Amino acid sequence: MFGMLSRDASIGFIGLGVMGRPMAKNLLKAGYSLSVYTRTKSTASDVLESGAAWKDSIAEVAAASDVIITIVGFPSDVESVYLGESGILNNAQPGSYVIDMTTSQPSLARQIYEQGVSVGIQALDAPVSGGDVGARNGTLTIMVGGDDDAFRACLPIFEVMGENIVLQGPAGAGQHTKMCNQITIASTMVGVCEAIVYAEGAGCDPQRVLQSISTGAAASWSLSNLAPRILAGDFDPGFYVKHFIKDMTIALESAQEIGIMTPGLNLSLSLYRRLAEQGEEDAGTQALIKLFSRCQAN
Amino acid sequence: MFGMLSRDASIGFIGLGVMGRPMAKNLLKAGYSLSVYTRTKSTASDVLESGAAWKDSIAEVAAASDVIITIVGFPSDVESVYLGESGILNNAQPGSYVIDMTTSQPSLARQIYEQGVSVGIQALDAPVSGGDVGARNGTLTIMVGGDDDAFRACLPIFEVMGENIVLQGPAGAGQHTKMCNQITIASTMVGVCEAIVYAEGAGCDPQRVLQSISTGAAASWSLSNLAPRILAGDFDPGFYVKHFIKDMTIALESAQEIGIMTPGLNLSLSLYRRLAEQGEEDAGTQALIKLFSRCQAN
Repeated sequence: MFGMLSRDASIGFIGLGVMGRPMAKNLLKAGYSLSVYTRTKSTASDVLESGAAWKDSIAEVAAASDVIITIVGFPSDVESVYLGESGILNNAQPGSYVIDMTTSQPSLARQIYEQGVSVGIQALDAPVSGGDVGARNGTLTIMVGGDDDAFRACLPIFEVMGENIVLQGPAGAGQHTKMCNQITIASTMVGVCEAIVYAEGAGCDPQRVLQSISTGAAASWSLSNLAPRILAGDFDPGFYVKHFIKDMTIALESAQEIGIMTPGLNLSLSLYRRLAEQGEEDAGTQALIKLFSRCQAN
Repeated sequence: MFGMLSRDASIGFIGLGVMGRPMAKNLLKAGYSLSVYTRTKSTASDVLESGAAWKDSIAEVAAASDVIITIVGFPSDVESVYLGESGILNNAQPGSYVIDMTTSQPSLARQIYEQGVSVGIQALDAPVSGGDVGARNGTLTIMVGGDDDAFRACLPIFEVMGENIVLQGPAGAGQHTKMCNQITIASTMVGVCEAIVYAEGAGCDPQRVLQSISTGAAASWSLSNLAPRILAGDFDPGFYVKHFIKDMTIALESAQEIGIMTPGLNLSLSLYRRLAEQGEEDAGTQALIKLFSRCQAN
């Protein structure tokens, strides 16, 4: 029933945001035929110009595709796109694959998987990391949860979009892995911001301090990539504060379900929520430093 | 008065611990003549075999040396070694250099510098990072505070011991920079441990999770180097819990003097203190995971 997917496989793609657009274009470039639907048709324009076919609803995309890929905003979007009356599971063909690449709830991923099984549809959860740059270059890290045969069938499609592609375990395991990624970043960002605020407060040259600390035991992607942006006063979003809050909220709920203590995550989430309340939700995550600077001034 | 230091310069070395011993041996290997004193003579045995001269007191080491290097335990040790009656500043020759490589209080570094100036002695604070491996290989990061001419005079000596050697600013700036290093690590370690505990709690294979998250935006030295040790059940000290607590305590006091908020540092320090109370003070810093596991069990 579930065979390998050839380049003739038709792919449906829902969610043409900052991540989805370049991912869809890479699939077109690799020779897949793509049908798309999005709430605002204008956001699909360059993907349509690149050769994708427009459909008038999610249901039509689902019905026309061997594989349906989604990368939308919030778990509530995932829920309505998959589980609604006119959603994917109600309209996709038996034997098709659905892949949710949104960062979303592990429990919702399991629910979609189970409902999929009941109607003959194989679901994978496959959130990514690597940002818009990784999406454009096809170098995303893809963390997959689901059945092994579905993973192997969809692997050629994943390989168009990413490089570090790992089947982490059963349905939900991809989302859990993404939560581990965000949990790690959450506390790391707090440390990076505190170090910069300390350096400035102590009268050091933060740029020179980074020269000393960026290559040893304090080294991190955040320190090497976001600290220089902070020092340059560049708070443009590589990754939005509001999306990080969404992810950390999911992680915290999931940690509570699992029954583990995450004081670092709790702290980071509360700081980012305060930052968002101060109007910074559309800034990049490095804007966390502004909260520390403000607190210092108080 | 303060000229460049040739290879004929005589160096005094106080503190032959895990870090000091290999650093002293590298100086001997580079051709410097070394005199040493340590409370327990047996810890000096291999340095003496390598050609160092034994002295019977700190005062004798100080009197016999153009440059006195110290790397001892706690700020209280630094204080007595430098400022005591029979300490370095009372016994070193005018025109000599003193370099404290202990991780210690920035304020104490400034005090030593100022008292040094009053008796014609140039003091540098020069804490290091890179661990015993960096000490052995002569690849330490050395963060220096003090005057530029003293830094340049002592640079050939630093270059025997380290690679990333930066004059960070006036007296105390080396210690401040080391505090930035430790502040960054403090929160990063919390994130790394929470991610592993989450992965295990969620039923994922933590090893496989690391494969997905170690190379992207969650990447850090701690994640790449300490997480694998945690998963291997290896809690041997690369860096002792008790020394990390010492460093974080200095950082917190210093942050309070500066007047900045460091909630991540506060959290990490409180967790590590709890870990030490549970008998883990001689474990490596990666043992923090044990605290999370215990909390999970409760």
